Amino acid sequence: MYRPATADQLLALEVCAGIGELAKSDRFAAAEPEMVEAIVDGIGQFAAGEWAPLNRVGDLEGAKLENGVVRLPDGFADAYAHYVEQGWNAIAAPAEFGGQGLPFSLGVNVLENLGTANFAFNLLPMLTTGAIDALEQHGSEAQKALYLPKMISGEWSGTMNLTEPQAGSDLGALRATAAPIEEGEHAGKYRIAGTKIFITWGEHELAKNVVHLVLARLPGAPEGSRGISLFVVPKYLVKPDGSLGPRNDLKCVSLEHKLGIHASPTCVMSYGDSGECVGELVGEPNRGLMAMFTMMNNARINVGNQGVQVAERATQAAMAYARDRVQSVRAGSPDRSPVAIIEHPDVRRMLLRMKALTEASRALLYYTAGQVDRGTLGDAGAAARAECLVPMLKAWGTDVGVEVASIGVQVHGGMGFVEETGAAQHYRDARIAPIYEGTNGIQAADLVTRKLGLDGGEALDALLADVERGTSGPLAALAQACRDIALWMREDASLDDRLAGSVPFTAMCAVAVAGWQLARQAEAVAAGAAPSLARSKPVSARYFLDHVVPEALGMAAAARSGADLFYALDAEALVA
Amino acid sequence: MYRPATADQLLALEVCAGIGELAKSDRFAAAEPEMVEAIVDGIGQFAAGEWAPLNRVGDLEGAKLENGVVRLPDGFADAYAHYVEQGWNAIAAPAEFGGQGLPFSLGVNVLENLGTANFAFNLLPMLTTGAIDALEQHGSEAQKALYLPKMISGEWSGTMNLTEPQAGSDLGALRATAAPIEEGEHAGKYRIAGTKIFITWGEHELAKNVVHLVLARLPGAPEGSRGISLFVVPKYLVKPDGSLGPRNDLKCVSLEHKLGIHASPTCVMSYGDSGECVGELVGEPNRGLMAMFTMMNNARINVGNQGVQVAERATQAAMAYARDRVQSVRAGSPDRSPVAIIEHPDVRRMLLRMKALTEASRALLYYTAGQVDRGTLGDAGAAARAECLVPMLKAWGTDVGVEVASIGVQVHGGMGFVEETGAAQHYRDARIAPIYEGTNGIQAADLVTRKLGLDGGEALDALLADVERGTSGPLAALAQACRDIALWMREDASLDDRLAGSVPFTAMCAVAVAGWQLARQAEAVAAGAAPSLARSKPVSARYFLDHVVPEALGMAAAARSGADLFYALDAEALVA
Repeated sequence: MYRPATADQLLALEVCAGIGELAKSDRFAAAEPEMVEAIVDGIGQFAAGEWAPLNRVGDLEGAKLENGVVRLPDGFADAYAHYVEQGWNAIAAPAEFGGQGLPFSLGVNVLENLGTANFAFNLLPMLTTGAIDALEQHGSEAQKALYLPKMISGEWSGTMNLTEPQAGSDLGALRATAAPIEEGEHAGKYRIAGTKIFITWGEHELAKNVVHLVLARLPGAPEGSRGISLFVVPKYLVKPDGSLGPRNDLKCVSLEHKLGIHASPTCVMSYGDSGECVGELVGEPNRGLMAMFTMMNNARINVGNQGVQVAERATQAAMAYARDRVQSVRAGSPDRSPVAIIEHPDVRRMLLRMKALTEASRALLYYTAGQVDRGTLGDAGAAARAECLVPMLKAWGTDVGVEVASIGVQVHGGMGFVEETGAAQHYRDARIAPIYEGTNGIQAADLVTRKLGLDGGEALDALLADVERGTSGPLAALAQACRDIALWMREDASLDDRLAGSVPFTAMCAVAVAGWQLARQAEAVAAGAAPSLARSKPVSARYFLDHVVPEALGMAAAARSGADLFYALDAEALVA
Repeated sequence: MYRPATADQLLALEVCAGIGELAKSDRFAAAEPEMVEAIVDGIGQFAAGEWAPLNRVGDLEGAKLENGVVRLPDGFADAYAHYVEQGWNAIAAPAEFGGQGLPFSLGVNVLENLGTANFAFNLLPMLTTGAIDALEQHGSEAQKALYLPKMISGEWSGTMNLTEPQAGSDLGALRATAAPIEEGEHAGKYRIAGTKIFITWGEHELAKNVVHLVLARLPGAPEGSRGISLFVVPKYLVKPDGSLGPRNDLKCVSLEHKLGIHASPTCVMSYGDSGECVGELVGEPNRGLMAMFTMMNNARINVGNQGVQVAERATQAAMAYARDRVQSVRAGSPDRSPVAIIEHPDVRRMLLRMKALTEASRALLYYTAGQVDRGTLGDAGAAARAECLVPMLKAWGTDVGVEVASIGVQVHGGMGFVEETGAAQHYRDARIAPIYEGTNGIQAADLVTRKLGLDGGEALDALLADVERGTSGPLAALAQACRDIALWMREDASLDDRLAGSVPFTAMCAVAVAGWQLARQAEAVAAGAAPSLARSKPVSARYFLDHVVPEALGMAAAARSGADLFYALDAEALVA
């Protein structure tokens, strides 16, 4: 039933990511049209054929911990092995270590297809990608040579170990330790000790090794976020020739019982129970959090991508159900035969909303990815613009995922509340994305603090000015409203006021940019691009501009209402 | 941890339902202030003490079907027995059959407290209430005498059997049959045959009998909705003296595996497998759907109530978590100690939004219930106003439930996605309410068709005019926008155009009325009502007026955008 959204992805790559221009650079010269099409087609077919069929069983059976080993339902091991064999993990990874060196935008497409097929399973390559980024940017040459080739191929997977029970959004509070090993075969390395929670795919046997990146404190490190270092801590120690040595002293002690993403093992990891957990420092001592930050942008884009993924999947399911389910005569029609519910006006509204939100969030995703690629090519303005776009995409894209999945349940009626249709799984799976990789509130705070001030405010303002210039009507008014609010935030608002309005402001900005990119797609289609979308794209774009954009304008009052009201009650009075 | 919202309920009863005025009538003279307080206090304590503790185990273990018998987790049977013993089921039921004859508004309060304590369990008395209404309004005197006393006491429970696999929203498509019994001990009764799905609490052993109200077709009945009759079909046949006879030929053949409300058995019911299922006709032949409609308003209010319930529970959980969870320093504060997350601006925003939406939907609930009570006292204008309010409450109230539960997950961060905190249960439970008892799309269609034309449009317009007159600023502007759209819908818009804009229009109207009622509460509190709310009510009302009302204004474009865009693509092109 599920079909990859190949045509819309190619359009977004062309119009929003500008893949054609990227291919004009030496670095991305391989991203010529045939290659792009082959990748988008190929990963779509692979994901639909091999990963999508495991989505339901993954939800029903989930990951299970048995004697310290995480078991996945039948089929996952083969499906991952085929993914590795076909080389999909290496698309956007650095050529120096066996990757294909293609644009990030194409890596985004690989993840989009995998995650639309199987939201929970996709977290495995997604986390590996993050670990590859961190090692590539901060590892020593020896570390890169030792770890990257097998992580890029996918033979080994990667994880990020940040959270501890008392240290969630505030990583500065973490307590895991790393003690220098003075002598013996591991001299120069560190003994890692501590407990980490919410470790996605922290333990499993689909890959031959699991390379954990762990934040911990060196002896005497400063308190807070300036005393955190990054370590690479493999499940199996790696010999200098790259072969696997003995098992390291780390283990998964339990799995969380979660609302969704049941096939993704969310592990409590214990390091150094026997005092023998060996890790290597990555980068400079006490600079671990900085190392995390440099890879965080891409990780957040990948989570925003998950909003697009679940929206696409939920939309397809709702469309299929609405087309097949016959119920009630068409209101006002002389024909008294019941019709497929897709013919009823409000069902049309729901489906069109799902479709428009999905396409708009995808447009924002590829626009953001394209700016990252331009940044990689040395365009500092694009890099700064990407910095502004990331929190919009992560926050709004994941909220779109939740909204669209919820509408998907509604389209199914009573059957949507019954688990067997799968609509409910999307609603459950979608709910994680606004939370992890920095809650959406943290994204919004990032936009109205760090990102708002980039280039003296010019980075964000130039983006919104481009939207305003490139459009008209309510969308231009929305962009203008965003610029006004941004100006107020920069020049007149207190920090509290900015934070108080940050979430509605972020949504407004995201809708403005996404609407602009969707409108650009519609123009391109009108000019002959993507003939298969010639009928539908003008409709989804128009829905977005006429319905979603005015709603976003309705948030302007909230965005600039300030914080006073929020603190009119102290905590006890608020709770009382 | 959970505390009943007694003070806010009493305020809503006083200001929005106008319980004081109701008590001036002969019929509701018993609803004097001491009695009202005793009920609200008493049911709140009972529900919090006995039903709330079963909420989590009900979700975890759920209802189970074993050899045709539905089992509930330990504790449910006792908790239901105590509920019956204490007489809570009888509060608003007719005095003639053992009820207390108090206003519907107080019955609403009983259900609110039960459902906030335990959403799934509350469906048992809620469905019984609906069945009581139907029998009271359409049953013969003999039927009433036989069934009502034990249903009103709660010894027997009731169900509504409407849906069949091919007949969901479109009841006219149902196929269950009823054949007259010509001779023998059941002469004059009917043999019922058919399968019904989604039968809430269709089988269980908490009550001594389950009284099913079943829609079915008589031989030769007209096709469609004009050929449906209503039957009372007890699980155990009832002897003339009211004692239980043999088991009837009906059974629960399976339970649905649902997203939420796990403790509420959602049954597939099979009637007449052995050709021996006996039922009695209720009311006139072929008038079953009309009988359903007369009780539907109250049933829909009770579902709107569920939105309030889950919002209240989710809000309390989020407040408690946010007050206790310490994470991150307060942005901009010289004090570098981490604070409870309730101190962070965006967490404040989330909590205040949850609180304001909860209180506003409660205000709308009791305002609606008060209008029903006025209608019962013979006020035709109030009855018509209640007709207009019901779809607003059901649709918007249940959407509020989902939104607030979702924010509740977000406030909990990663812990919200883990089932053990309970935040996820609210998110799952809440999702049913926009679907059943007429989907929210059907509610909106009801508003823009039947309700829009009541009293030549005067019923809705007078309500909105009251809002406009009673307020100022954005809320008055919202009421004016609703009136304009209503006028356009009545005079210029096609049926398709009305339906296309129905959902945003319904939300706009609901926000307008709820905001008005919340503002009235704030005025009453300023004048000395509910001293315990003196600090908080102005803040929640202000948030609603400054943030939520402008958002609703942002839906105006969608409400009057018409249907053309929705049909610009035919079904195949939309799905493609």
